[in-house]
Amino acid sequence: MRYEELSQLQVDALDREKTVLVIPLGSVEQHGHHMPLGTDTMLAYALCLAAAAQMEGQVVVLPPPWYGFSAHHMRFPGSITLSHTTLMAMVEDIVASLAQHGFGRVLLINGHGGNGGVVDVLAAVLGKRHYGRMRIAGLTYFALAAPAIARLRRSREGGMGHACEFETSMIMHLRPDLVAADRAQITYPDPGSAYLSTDLLKGSAVKTYLDFKDLSPHGTLGDPSLANPEMGAEFFAAVVAELVRFMEDFARWPITAENRT
Amino acid sequence: MRYEELSQLQVDALDREKTVLVIPLGSVEQHGHHMPLGTDTMLAYALCLAAAAQMEGQVVVLPPPWYGFSAHHMRFPGSITLSHTTLMAMVEDIVASLAQHGFGRVLLINGHGGNGGVVDVLAAVLGKRHYGRMRIAGLTYFALAAPAIARLRRSREGGMGHACEFETSMIMHLRPDLVAADRAQITYPDPGSAYLSTDLLKGSAVKTYLDFKDLSPHGTLGDPSLANPEMGAEFFAAVVAELVRFMEDFARWPITAENRT
Amino acid sequence: MRYEELSQLQVDALDREKTVLVIPLGSVEQHGHHMPLGTDTMLAYALCLAAAAQMEGQVVVLPPPWYGFSAHHMRFPGSITLSHTTLMAMVEDIVASLAQHGFGRVLLINGHGGNGGVVDVLAAVLGKRHYGRMRIAGLTYFALAAPAIARLRRSREGGMGHACEFETSMIMHLRPDLVAADRAQITYPDPGSAYLSTDLLKGSAVKTYLDFKDLSPHGTLGDPSLANPEMGAEFFAAVVAELVRFMEDFARWPITAENRT
Amino acid sequence: MRYEELSQLQVDALDREKTVLVIPLGSVEQHGHHMPLGTDTMLAYALCLAAAAQMEGQVVVLPPPWYGFSAHHMRFPGSITLSHTTLMAMVEDIVASLAQHGFGRVLLINGHGGNGGVVDVLAAVLGKRHYGRMRIAGLTYFALAAPAIARLRRSREGGMGHACEFETSMIMHLRPDLVAADRAQITYPDPGSAYLSTDLLKGSAVKTYLDFKDLSPHGTLGDPSLANPEMGAEFFAAVVAELVRFMEDFARWPITAENRT
Amino acid sequence: MRYEELSQLQVDALDREKTVLVIPLGSVEQHGHHMPLGTDTMLAYALCLAAAAQMEGQVVVLPPPWYGFSAHHMRFPGSITLSHTTLMAMVEDIVASLAQHGFGRVLLINGHGGNGGVVDVLAAVLGKRHYGRMRIAGLTYFALAAPAIARLRRSREGGMGHACEFETSMIMHLRPDLVAADRAQITYPDPGSAYLSTDLLKGSAVKTYLDFKDLSPHGTLGDPSLANPEMGAEFFAAVVAELVRFMEDFARWPITAENRT
Amino acid sequence: MRYEELSQLQVDALDREKTVLVIPLGSVEQHGHHMPLGTDTMLAYALCLAAAAQMEGQVVVLPPPWYGFSAHHMRFPGSITLSHTTLMAMVEDIVASLAQHGFGRVLLINGHGGNGGVVDVLAAVLGKRHYGRMRIAGLTYFALAAPAIARLRRSREGGMGHACEFETSMIMHLRPDLVAADRAQITYPDPGSAYLSTDLLKGSAVKTYLDFKDLSPHGTLGDPSLANPEMGAEFFAAVVAELVRFMEDFARWPITAENRT
Repeated sequence: MRYEELSQLQVDALDREKTVLVIPLGSVEQHGHHMPLGTDTMLAYALCLAAAAQMEGQVVVLPPPWYGFSAHHMRFPGSITLSHTTLMAMVEDIVASLAQHGFGRVLLINGHGGNGGVVDVLAAVLGKRHYGRMRIAGLTYFALAAPAIARLRRSREGGMGHACEFETSMIMHLRPDLVAADRAQITYPDPGSAYLSTDLLKGSAVKTYLDFKDLSPHGTLGDPSLANPEMGAEFFAAVVAELVRFMEDFARWPITAENRT
Repeated sequence: MRYEELSQLQVDALDREKTVLVIPLGSVEQHGHHMPLGTDTMLAYALCLAAAAQMEGQVVVLPPPWYGFSAHHMRFPGSITLSHTTLMAMVEDIVASLAQHGFGRVLLINGHGGNGGVVDVLAAVLGKRHYGRMRIAGLTYFALAAPAIARLRRSREGGMGHACEFETSMIMHLRPDLVAADRAQITYPDPGSAYLSTDLLKGSAVKTYLDFKDLSPHGTLGDPSLANPEMGAEFFAAVVAELVRFMEDFARWPITAENRT
Repeated sequence: MRYEELSQLQVDALDREKTVLVIPLGSVEQHGHHMPLGTDTMLAYALCLAAAAQMEGQVVVLPPPWYGFSAHHMRFPGSITLSHTTLMAMVEDIVASLAQHGFGRVLLINGHGGNGGVVDVLAAVLGKRHYGRMRIAGLTYFALAAPAIARLRRSREGGMGHACEFETSMIMHLRPDLVAADRAQITYPDPGSAYLSTDLLKGSAVKTYLDFKDLSPHGTLGDPSLANPEMGAEFFAAVVAELVRFMEDFARWPITAENRT
Repeated sequence: MRYEELSQLQVDALDREKTVLVIPLGSVEQHGHHMPLGTDTMLAYALCLAAAAQMEGQVVVLPPPWYGFSAHHMRFPGSITLSHTTLMAMVEDIVASLAQHGFGRVLLINGHGGNGGVVDVLAAVLGKRHYGRMRIAGLTYFALAAPAIARLRRSREGGMGHACEFETSMIMHLRPDLVAADRAQITYPDPGSAYLSTDLLKGSAVKTYLDFKDLSPHGTLGDPSLANPEMGAEFFAAVVAELVRFMEDFARWPITAENRT
Repeated sequence: MRYEELSQLQVDALDREKTVLVIPLGSVEQHGHHMPLGTDTMLAYALCLAAAAQMEGQVVVLPPPWYGFSAHHMRFPGSITLSHTTLMAMVEDIVASLAQHGFGRVLLINGHGGNGGVVDVLAAVLGKRHYGRMRIAGLTYFALAAPAIARLRRSREGGMGHACEFETSMIMHLRPDLVAADRAQITYPDPGSAYLSTDLLKGSAVKTYLDFKDLSPHGTLGDPSLANPEMGAEFFAAVVAELVRFMEDFARWPITAENRT
Repeated sequence: MRYEELSQLQVDALDREKTVLVIPLGSVEQHGHHMPLGTDTMLAYALCLAAAAQMEGQVVVLPPPWYGFSAHHMRFPGSITLSHTTLMAMVEDIVASLAQHGFGRVLLINGHGGNGGVVDVLAAVLGKRHYGRMRIAGLTYFALAAPAIARLRRSREGGMGHACEFETSMIMHLRPDLVAADRAQITYPDPGSAYLSTDLLKGSAVKTYLDFKDLSPHGTLGDPSLANPEMGAEFFAAVVAELVRFMEDFARWPITAENRT
């Protein structure tokens, strides 16, 4: 189930057509005063593993390359960013390698808002490049599970942004040792326009750059004071359920283009 | 109002802080059997000009670079695609030039679904690059105006996809000579998964590559038989109103980052 | 005749071997105090359309990507430049798309001196890349028509440089509303060496960078006071005639390399 | 000690001048029939963490980006390779981010032979780029510890190559569940020239490409039958000791170039 | 006079403002059956050295990087080509290094027609990049000296193309041991259009790709039977005289842009 | 034997499978106060030619592209550096051209320490790219011949670094006119760690950037006072012997991968 723990023989024994290979994407960037830098990748990876565990050998999770596109966090200590071109090249190379071994289904599961546009472009570019031989899909897990998360949340709009009710709860569930709850700060930031929102669950037709230091002096967007490990377990389970539901669907998408001219 | 018609003196007389410079983006790609290749750019450009006309000298529209990212249309005759890297480079260079002249507000108005991810990445990358000196926003006009368009549409989901009720109506309004209505074909394509939709107004948390030749043998997605010039005028006015509303908002966004450290 | 106005069916009906596809290139850059930024692209595009109109369906003109390589104009307000690599990538992608559809003749018609070297390199690089399947030629229209223009001009050497007798006359002919003749200024610039000339019709074996702000404080090179719309019509007709003459020749160049080993 | 587990406050509290930041590099590639794909990164990462643990807060280990340059393994199922340019870009971006936060010491600890040349180039390029502000060193751990490893080994030359006595022992020590010892195969490959060796501890002045499928049909180079967890513990301790010894030295290298002109 | 033979002290003693640094460019490509692959670089380099020798310490010639853009010769054995991007990068890096040492005048002297467009683009790009600190000029020597060469030639148009009367004579003058005169073949190739010429001295407003194998089965364009060493000496002296004349002019071009805003 | 002196017929007559094509690499960079900038390329080239001369038509030496990666020398006047990407692209293009002509053996012989990592990466990358059709090897001559040089040297460790006993002796042997022995300075530099050495013959498992201006104010590393032409002749002969020995071995390496799957 963990790609890096398989031997070449075990990879060779996988069904190239049926197996869903998952590449978890996240980031290493500030998550307020109370949460670890690796939050996004930790969550994306844990969710992928948990979802894969429920799918009886149909899914293999690759090791996460850890780093993402975090330009908007660079004014906070510790944040690391790849350029968008490097992030794209990294995923392109991994997918090209998997294509070379004949795999037919690759899923990018992203846990970091800043990677969203890049994942979108990657899905289009790689889907074209490997057309007829591989299906590629990309998603950001909290967008996929937005309705389910919305049903569970207690904060109002703006309360779920970054290092917030949602992310803090899930890290409390998974790695309580890494949360300094007493350092958590609450911010309902004002992005400066009714067209913009910092809430994880609220998309916008308008894309722009928001520097996180301008939105919040300590880097938290939302209300981590509402977080607790029990809620974290519920959020986690809800997202896993949505991932499983999607992956079962994805596993049935046709690979070969019959009517290709 | 048309950037290319201004002299250097007229550009120099513009308010660098207040003026919104608009870059229209579209594509040159098949639009079914009945619509012209240039549909997306024509519409984006006409909408930009109409919106600018309502804003009394606050907006200047640059000439559209015409070509976009249309990899998914390349199996149809006539379609032209830039690679995503070329499209990005082109916009990056234009924006860098505007930044050099001291302009503070640039808006990318996109009329082609396939450019969506690229516009998203551009907004982030350019916003960071010119941070503190320029605000950059990007949007796809039918996503911005989705609720308004939804109120006007007559087709059910799937009826507005590509060369459809919506686009055909607007070209009938603007350039009736370019529509061969008798050649229009109706398709409600099946994208193969409940997670995917070909409707212009329906976003999805899942991004993937859909080759248009697989979705529709003639390239139309939706129902152009519902199109007519009167509807086109209504759609057009509705989108222009939304663009104006947003641009008035955008024109007030603060440019300078006061608390930059 | 205008590519973007054709449907895919109309493109498909074109003779792939015989049709000449024309890509107009120009720039968006200062043209003195009296002329619009878009002068070069406007002229190149209008000339292409007029020449195509005389060739009875043998020529289709693509929409102009508008922007060019204008590094030497950047110190004047409004000038926009693509890097040479972006300009090349843009044309390379368009031509690759046309090659994919099986077209055999592509002609780059350039209206901006600053694009000259890039067009030269493009002709060589793309000619090699698509060798045996496509013929590609590139030209700058006032170089092609230099003898014809020379016969009509009234200014002495240096009078035809930029926003000059020649360009001003033609814009007066095509778009008189865009010329502020009372703001026109006369300059016979000194490029600092007998090896260099700023005259449009005078090539030089020596290539160098001349920053236009150093040559002329207002950006005009030459004498626009000699311009008038009648001369513009004559210049225009003369260039069109040369373009037609060349395109008739180009349409007969063999495409397939018989003796390729 | 694990970078991704720190909060921004904890990063901010680190001594920018003294702290050694370690980037572990490895690969995801076939390791014979008996060893996991992730062997190289697992080992490099475990060694970095163990060495850091002995250095009382002077060292922080970044999460490993997992993937490396493995072109020579691509004919075996499961192997993944980044291009050399992607691998370089990835490390360049990470180091640029650390430089932006003011850190003065970065160490690349590599566990994969195929990354060797890239690490060498990175040390030179990044050392120049951040000259005067950051010291950067790169090493492959089994080259650093070659004499210590040589004292412990039991195999003759060629016995320690890939998925061999050395690597198998250490994975047996760290993750015995991932070793299928009964599938291990012994190969003393012939690289075809006295100038070439496949032994981990034997460098060569001659660099060339050796495709691992040509060297060994199952991908193992050397003798894993000599491996056991006790030896793995000894090898591991020996390498950690050498890493600690070097890092203590590296932590004292001057950062600022006093005599820079 | 030869840059590579100077010590750093000797370079340091050069007048940074006055000294003209020359970068000779050429190619390694087929030159018919009777001439060496290195003809173009040998000639360019020899001409540079001879011209420098006449200018009493005002000129230093860098070692030639030997290889050029020779895509059109690749169907002949032995021809080597750099891509245009590599050729540009190479010259860009060399010039950047010279700029770093404060030199103010760099001259690219090219001896290979295929490099023409690249030299043109380089002059523009590098002139802009180092504007105000360095003047950069580029020329192809037989274009600079075209009138002088024309006065000496005996062949009619088409007789001076490649490995022809002109080049063969000069190699006979410089390196008679490298000419196999008995293998020389005469070709007056037909480029297929009155707009095109293969004559070295005849420029064209139309740029296209001409594959040399299609023009001439053995690679010679023109008439080497008219060549002899005496003519070679005359040609050589005439070109040197033109180079000297131009370099004396170039050495006086102002470097600093006084009116830069 | 000199590639650039061959005609296409002579290249065509070469045995594509047996002939070893040698690309000499070096640099143009400061070599102390007493030695010429071109030392590294001069030596590498002379050694290649001398070795080839002993191998009776089995070896052809290409002209050296002269410039290398010399970032660490840029603070000294006259030093020129290519970026590592340019250096790689240059060699990649040359090798691709040779591959196109069907040659099966290419050897990079490097004479500049700073190029070491790049040569290593090139051997891997190009070996993979041309796998099954071409063998590519890369070496730095003083590393190949280290034992032989060590037997001849008189200086202690540190005495052979840069512009030192070794290099000075060989230039005295080859080009005594280019050595200003009276300006030679002695330095045994302290690289600041026991893990680092500046001696040419002493490798290190630790790679880092050492700026030569920090190591030595005049750029010499080691003791040129021990140099003399007789020693130069001995060093030269010893290196040539090692190159011949290796090339005889290399000429027998199998090219075709029999067991490629």
